[in-house]
Parts: sequence; C-alpha cells; structure tokens
Amino acid sequence: MYRSHTCGELNAGHIGNTVTLSGWVQKVRNKGFMIWVDLRDRYGLTQLIFDEERSSAELMDKAGKLAREFVIQVTGEVIEREAKNPNIPTGEIELLVQDFQILNSSKTPPFTIEDETDGGEDLRMKYRYLDIRRKPVQDKLMFRHQVGMKVRNYLSNAGFIEVETPYLIKSTPEGARDFVVPSRMNEGQFYALPQSPQTFKQLLMVGGMDKYFQIVKCFRDEDLRADRQPEFTQIDCEMAFVEQEDILNIFEGLTRHLLKEIRNVEVNEFPRLTYADAMRKYGNDKPDIRFGMEFAELDDVTKNKGFNVFDQQELVVGIAVPGAASFTRKEIDKLISWVKRPQIGATGLVWAKYNEDGSLKSSVDKFYSQEDLKAWAKASSAKPGGLILVMAGDADKTRSQLSALRMHLGNEMGLRKSDEFAPLWVVDFPLLEWDEETERFHAMHHPFTSPKKEDFALLETDPGKVRANAYDLVLNGNEIGGGSIRIHDKETQSQMFKYLGFTPEEAEEQFGFLMDAFQYGAPPHGGIAFGFDRLVAILGGQESIRDYIAFPKNNSGRDVMIDAPAKLDEQQLTDLHLQLKS
Amino acid sequence: MYRSHTCGELNAGHIGNTVTLSGWVQKVRNKGFMIWVDLRDRYGLTQLIFDEERSSAELMDKAGKLAREFVIQVTGEVIEREAKNPNIPTGEIELLVQDFQILNSSKTPPFTIEDETDGGEDLRMKYRYLDIRRKPVQDKLMFRHQVGMKVRNYLSNAGFIEVETPYLIKSTPEGARDFVVPSRMNEGQFYALPQSPQTFKQLLMVGGMDKYFQIVKCFRDEDLRADRQPEFTQIDCEMAFVEQEDILNIFEGLTRHLLKEIRNVEVNEFPRLTYADAMRKYGNDKPDIRFGMEFAELDDVTKNKGFNVFDQQELVVGIAVPGAASFTRKEIDKLISWVKRPQIGATGLVWAKYNEDGSLKSSVDKFYSQEDLKAWAKASSAKPGGLILVMAGDADKTRSQLSALRMHLGNEMGLRKSDEFAPLWVVDFPLLEWDEETERFHAMHHPFTSPKKEDFALLETDPGKVRANAYDLVLNGNEIGGGSIRIHDKETQSQMFKYLGFTPEEAEEQFGFLMDAFQYGAPPHGGIAFGFDRLVAILGGQESIRDYIAFPKNNSGRDVMIDAPAKLDEQQLTDLHLQLKS
Repeated sequence: MYRSHTCGELNAGHIGNTVTLSGWVQKVRNKGFMIWVDLRDRYGLTQLIFDEERSSAELMDKAGKLAREFVIQVTGEVIEREAKNPNIPTGEIELLVQDFQILNSSKTPPFTIEDETDGGEDLRMKYRYLDIRRKPVQDKLMFRHQVGMKVRNYLSNAGFIEVETPYLIKSTPEGARDFVVPSRMNEGQFYALPQSPQTFKQLLMVGGMDKYFQIVKCFRDEDLRADRQPEFTQIDCEMAFVEQEDILNIFEGLTRHLLKEIRNVEVNEFPRLTYADAMRKYGNDKPDIRFGMEFAELDDVTKNKGFNVFDQQELVVGIAVPGAASFTRKEIDKLISWVKRPQIGATGLVWAKYNEDGSLKSSVDKFYSQEDLKAWAKASSAKPGGLILVMAGDADKTRSQLSALRMHLGNEMGLRKSDEFAPLWVVDFPLLEWDEETERFHAMHHPFTSPKKEDFALLETDPGKVRANAYDLVLNGNEIGGGSIRIHDKETQSQMFKYLGFTPEEAEEQFGFLMDAFQYGAPPHGGIAFGFDRLVAILGGQESIRDYIAFPKNNSGRDVMIDAPAKLDEQQLTDLHLQLKS
Repeated sequence: MYRSHTCGELNAGHIGNTVTLSGWVQKVRNKGFMIWVDLRDRYGLTQLIFDEERSSAELMDKAGKLAREFVIQVTGEVIEREAKNPNIPTGEIELLVQDFQILNSSKTPPFTIEDETDGGEDLRMKYRYLDIRRKPVQDKLMFRHQVGMKVRNYLSNAGFIEVETPYLIKSTPEGARDFVVPSRMNEGQFYALPQSPQTFKQLLMVGGMDKYFQIVKCFRDEDLRADRQPEFTQIDCEMAFVEQEDILNIFEGLTRHLLKEIRNVEVNEFPRLTYADAMRKYGNDKPDIRFGMEFAELDDVTKNKGFNVFDQQELVVGIAVPGAASFTRKEIDKLISWVKRPQIGATGLVWAKYNEDGSLKSSVDKFYSQEDLKAWAKASSAKPGGLILVMAGDADKTRSQLSALRMHLGNEMGLRKSDEFAPLWVVDFPLLEWDEETERFHAMHHPFTSPKKEDFALLETDPGKVRANAYDLVLNGNEIGGGSIRIHDKETQSQMFKYLGFTPEEAEEQFGFLMDAFQYGAPPHGGIAFGFDRLVAILGGQESIRDYIAFPKNNSGRDVMIDAPAKLDEQQLTDLHLQLKS
C-alpha cells in the first residue's frame, strides 16, 4: 500500500496519527537545520518537515537531496503546524517525517509546475503530461468529467438511452471533408470517420429507440482555425414523436440544470429570437445578449439630409454604447481603425456623442442638426453619456461588421462577464444558403432538416426564403447546440436531395439506406447536438477549449507529444493496397 | 404534441380519460364489426378498439386499412377491457379510438417485428433499424446503457475521472494491426486509430490524474473471427500509487456491485488462481468454474501398467463427469468423435464408468484391474454414477484438448447456467510468450507490463519463466478484464523493449515520448481494461455480443446496412496524396 491518506485530507483531527503519503515534491525550502517539503497529489498539498533536532542526520541528508517533481512515499506523524496556512485545507498540520523512499526521481522539468507557468504553448503541448500536473489544467479535466456525468445522469433520468454508433462508416461528399480509413479486407474501399452520428441516430428513431443520446467523438478534416480540433466531442441527441417545442423544452431543461448545478446560476425561460431578428438586432446568429447594444436601423433618421455617404447605402445601422461619450478622440480613432482592418473591412464609422448635458456632438455635424442627432439618439435608445456608432453599406455586410464592433466593445469594456450566463434560442433558420463558389444551394444545417410546412411551396419559386425547423442554442455569444426537426418521409427527402443538386443516383448511392428506412414506418423525429468541448469551456468561464481537452492537436492537426501523424512502413501500405502519390 | 402518454403506461386508473398515443401498429385483428389494433412503442403495447356501434363508419373504414408497422397518432377514451390480459401492464384497459392520423405508412417489413422473428441474420443486419424495433434487441441496447451508467457512476463515486483520449494517434507495429487514417495536411503521413488508450492513460498517471477511466471505442484490424468486431468498446482504467492488490480490490468491488445491482447476485470474495494452476486444473487461463470437473493428473495411477498409449506420453489427465456413467456407448462414441475433430485434434479418449454399485467399467479393461480403476476414481474424485474421461499426450496440447471437452460437456449437460455467476482472478501470468513464427519472445500482455521483482534475474537466463504483475478477471469462462502493474522507469522499459527485439532506435521512435515521460517523476501505476461488449453480454446471460451492439459489422468487417466500406472518389484520394496499388 503506497499511502494511507492523500495529500489533501489531513487536518487537525489527525494530529498524533502516523500516516503514509505518496506524491510529488512541489517545493523544497532548506534552512539547513530544518527542511520543509510541499508534497502534492491530485487531492492537495501537505507540508512535510524534517528537523535536525527530531530527525536523524541520515534522514536530513537524504531530504536535502530532494528536488522538484521527485516522487516519494513518506511516513510520519501528523503534528500541529506553528505557522498555520488558512488558504489550504491541510494548513493546520504538517507531517514530521519518520522515513521516506524515493519512488522515482525527476529531471528538472522544462517549465514550472505551478498555477502560472513559464512554459510557452509549444513546450506545454510537447510535455502535456507535465502540463496536466498543473492544477488549473487538472481542474479543467475534472470539471469536464463532472459536466459529462451531470449530462449523462440528467438525460438518462429523462428516459434517454445512450447508444454507441459506429466509428467506421461511409464517406459522403456533402459538407466538410471526411477522415477516411482504408480497408485491408475490402480492397480499394474505405471507411470514413463520422462527422456526426446523424444518420445513425435517425435510424435509431426509425428503430423505435424513442429517446437517444450519446457523448461521442466526431471528426472533420478541415483546415484548422484557432480553437478548432480535427476530433471533437458532441452531446448528440434525438427524439421521436416530437415537435420543435418539445425539443426546446427538454434541452432548455438540461441547460438550466447544468447552469444551476455547476455554476449555481438560475436562468428564467430562455428568450427566443428568429434568425431574421437575430441578424437584424445583433447582425449575428449567435448573439451575446449579456450587454444590450441592440442594433438600431437609422435609415429614416439619417437619409436625405445631404450626407451622400449614407444616402446611397442599402442600410444605415448603429448601436448606442452606454457610458462611452467619455471616449477620447484617440479612443474613437482606434475604433475606426479597428473596423477598417481587412478582417472587418468597413469603410468607416460615424459617431455621435450624447453628452451628459443633453447636447450631441457627432463626426458629421456638418450634415446633421442637434435635432437630427436627437432623433438618432431616440432611435438607438441612447442615454446621456452614451456614444452612438453608425455604419452604412450593403445590409448583410454592414450588420456583420457592426456585430464584430459590438463584440469588440463587449470584450474591451469588460461587458462579457465570465460568471454571467445568458442563453437563448435562435429559431427559424433558413433551410438553404447560396454558395457562390459552386453556384448552388447548400443545406444550411444538413440535408435531413425539414422545411417549415408553410414555406414548402417556396422551394420551387424562392428557395433561399424557405425557413427550416432548425434551431440553435446560443450561450454568451457561442453556438453551443444546434438541431432540427428532420424529414421522415422518402418523398420529401428525395426532393431535398434534388434541390441540393444530387442526381437520383447519387442520392440513392449515398443515402439509399436512409430513404429505404423511411419507407418502413419512420416516426416524426428531431434532435440536437451540443459541442461538448465548447459547452464545458463556457460553463468553466473560458473562451478557449484547448485546456479542456486532455491531449489536443495543434493547428496543423499534429499531436506534438507523440509526434503523430507519422510515416507508415511499406508493408502496411502494401497490406492496405495503397501507395503514396509521388 | 404527439402524445399525452406512452403505450406502456395506461392502466385502470386512467379509465374515463381522453388520451393521445403515438406508435407503431403491431397487429390488426379485423372482425368487420370490430377492429382491434395493438399499438407499440418503446414503452409497451396498448390495445386500440374500433367498434361499429361506437365508431363512425368513416373511422371503421380508415382503421380497416391499417397494416403492420404503420405509424399512427390516435386519440380516444381509456375504457375497461372485457378480456383482461394480466401479462402486460396495460392489460386492464383499451383505448376506444375517437380519431387517428397516419403519421407514416410502411411497406411490409422483410421479417416479422416479433420477439421471435422469421428474419435470418443477413436480413436482420441489412434492416438493422427494423431489427432494433424488436423488443429483445431494444431491451439489450437499453440494458447496455444501464450497465454503462452503473459503471460510470460507481467509478466516478470512487474518485475516478473520465478523460477522453485521442482517436487520431500514431501507428505502432507491435501487436495487432492498426487501422490507419491518411493525413491530408501532413503529406505521406498517417494517424492510427487506437487499439487501446494504453500509453495515454499511462501519461495521465504521469500527469497526476491519479485515477482515470474511460468507456471508449478501440479498433483492431484483424481477420475477424465469429463474435469479434473491428471496433469494440472498453472500460479502460488506470490508477497511480497502487499495487496489484489495490487494483484487484477496486475492480472486484465494481464487478460485485454490477452483479448485485443488475442481476441481484451476491458473490463472495473472488477466488484467485495463478496462471499455472489455472492451466493445471482447467487447461485454460479463463476457466468456467461454475461446474467443477477439475483436471486430475493421472500419470501415477495409469502409467507402467502395460498400456503403451499412456506410458509414452508426457501427461495423462482426466476429468470426472458427475452422473455420466449412464451415458450410452453411442453417446460416448460421439464424445470420442468430437475430440478427434481437427478443431480439437485429440488422438482418442479413454473412459471409465463408475457404476452406482461401485463397480468400474472402462474402455481399457484389458490393462487395468478394478483396483487400478478405483485408484483412477480416487485420484479424479469421481463419485458412483460418474464417468471418468482420460486423455494423454503432450502436456500443453492435452490440457487444451481436455479443456475443450470439459467446456463442451458443460454446454451439452446444461451446466453453464446463464443466471449463475462465478467470477475469479487469474494472476501471475507469464511476462513473455515464445512466437514460433518470428522466433522471438512477444509480450503476453503488452510491452508496458512489469515483471515480478523476484523473477527479474530470470529475464537474462530463462525469459519464458518470468512472471508478470498481470491479472485477468474471468467470468463464466470468459476473460472480461485484464491488466497489469506497469513499468514506470525508463531503464526497465528500455530493457523490456530490448528483450522484445526492438533496436534502441525503434524503441525511441515509437515510444520515446513514454520513456521521456518516465524521466520526469512517473509514479508507480497500473490498471485494467474490461471488454464492455462482452461484459454486457455475460451480465445479460448471453454468449454472443452482436445483439448488444446497435450497428455491428459482419465477418468481413462490412456494415451491410449502409454498405461500408466503399470506394472513394478520385479527388478524395488525390487530396490525401494517395493512389490505389494496381
């Protein structure tokens, strides 16, 4: 037995006991006549003490050779600490060491194993096993586990069955690129790794499983952007005999449960915004609604006043930034430069300060009177002390630019508080979106999403206008879940494939099994999938997912710790009937 | 809302209520003036009734067109049933239908959706979504979910953290064949899918996670035997600062908990057998100990009596089969033919009946007296009425043949009862096993398993004799879990790779990251992995795993439902820098 207790559990109640601990040397303070060692494990820190008056010379000598990250097993007596440390649970005691054994030594670690480390990102990834020893990383992995348990128990108690769907499936050209797996036993053929268990969960509904969920890895071979991983985890859910309302209720319940249990935050009924309204009010289909600043369309109060820049544009739209009338000219210029950066691409930014005394001062005073500006203030619900920021141009582009500015201000002004949670549903997404490159419509969600019945006729006449029974759950400016009511009859599904540019043969080859299944009594069904990595990060109050993943890959899709991917030996390629293209 | 209740919950308490149900038409009985329909969902069956005296002609007409597996939504009044059915929870009531709607029709299913189906294996796999509608299959998937939840909650409550390890890792030539995944972003390089998260869980121990588990998919590209799947699920566990004893205790606790919770079976302390004893007593390292028939070594009482066949052999070994003295000559001949089949490969079988009157009759009476045979009976602990079956030959081969015979008898005589559970630990496995083909030692468990300290010196002199800190958990003749205490220092690990025939360069290239990690304070650690598919099947009282997997693959590794694997289009291969070998 390596230990009688962990390094996190001893307190005044144990004084006088002889105990055995095992752990890592966090820190050594050597005063010669006395040596203190902080011993660490997952559960906490315990101070060990060696004292020349109470410890043998041999033991003092041995202790003097301990260094950071050595692994030791130590036996001693729990004694009361003279200088108590109220910040840690074991702060009332220390361990007067009787004997110890070095279980493993350690080279000097390449970075400090402390809450704040001196290790850069690359070094931390290469030695991820040392990074994981750091409490903030370890805590995040344990937090992830806790969220996973709570999700599973909640859904299981609500009658959902976790069913494991296969990882070796079939490649489909629709959507993002698949990772593929050559089959040795089926020459010239490949499996694909699932981008999601979409078709399988629908088949489980056809199979009468009624309520399904799975916390499951999914794979997407995309060029990686920051904070995207080639493998990621989904909470994947599907229900039969449901309408959109049923799904929103169930998963609003789950989200509320998690916020309450994990963050002790009570949230009322989640607001619902149509996609159209979300775009109009926030220029964004995943708005962060924690900090107001709703868009105000200002065409009526800005156009036809002689200011050409506005007059010619499709849309003039602004936001009122509370308390920002005090921004200096320099600060405003910085914002103007920010929106003009190529990443945002705006041509400019018009501003109007609503001073505390009620007067208004704008960058376009030449064209607008005080009364005109008062109308701006009214339209944008600006209050004295606020700053109105206005952009103009093509409607879609301008909304998107103003949204970026709004989020930028939210971040800069500290309005996106990590302990505040504002979930909402965005509903009525468009069914299709036009793709400039391929010059055809793509499914905005996926090809299995059902169109709204009342819009069905538009499919022939104005496909871009058709709304889908599709919804996203948005939390603090992030899409944490998305889903839809699915098509469940063969005819509609075939038509959908046709609208998406599939020939009947292609549709049959790729999704024939699903359309077959729909002919044998498929029930109405729908579902949702949550991005688990993102959900956990946001519940943890963080924006980056990387530290919530034990072994993440870098932006080239490499695991730098194990150095993967790597070359195969020639025999393996031969067995797989493959050769590299030269 | 598609339903107010499920098809499994209505009872006499609901009589008089108007309710709405949705489900599948299980059965239609049409007497013309009255029509009964069994409506089915995951939760049960409810009988619907249409009656020409109480239902409109139009409704009768519509109901007359219903057929098997149609999906309907029905509203009606819960009424008391005349002929009650005590076998189902809803048997006291029926639903007098007021109106219904066909949500989806169904073609006639290719096999009956009943507990016992007329569908063959191939058809059931092609239409797996219909097979899953059958209660026995649905129940098995729900059972699997329940076992999974109990495992997760037990381990989580015991302080284990579920950590997701990556699926896109690095190929290693050791052991079984990997499935590989070509990398598009890293030309000419491949990921591998994990055969197990072995190295990652060890790195988590180096990272101080202390107690890890994961229910996780693993992959092995082997030629499939019956009841093997290319993707399978493991309960993967690892602990730091533990000895073998700690691990056996924890996972004996888990197994006992599952048996109690799921099967209401109480099991005392699990017996422990060394590998050597298991082979000696049962000829098998995963003995089914539910039905006695331990091996008796009979050399002393059979040799040097003039029976050449025995005299010349390395080992004479037998079992006493209780109650089998009544076997007819024909039955015994059948057993003899059975052991002579090429799959078993025995040269023959000697028998001796221990009659109820105390006399003995054998197939070798010419060589053995009654007294001789009494000595056989004594040595094999045969009782009157029993049958002694004896084999002879090369020790290893003969034990294995007799083990096959013993299991065959256990099956034939109904001694392997599906509701009886007899777990045991097999410990002290050999570290290495000799591979005739490659003429070198292979790791019996894997290269990370630690040798027993006291056997360490034998590594140089007699490697085949070295025992490992390795253990298997055996249940009813199946290995359901296996693990070991790992090596945790670089020097031992390097030596192990050397004994296994790795050059230092190969060891470094493949496992350098692990040996690096061992230099930074790796704690002593060990673990275990359970075959989850198998565990669930055995807890369910079944031998075959296939129906506990939602979408299994066939023996060629194909998913016949979605028809995977499949060809890729040329562009995908080009993107992956690959071409097919002609």
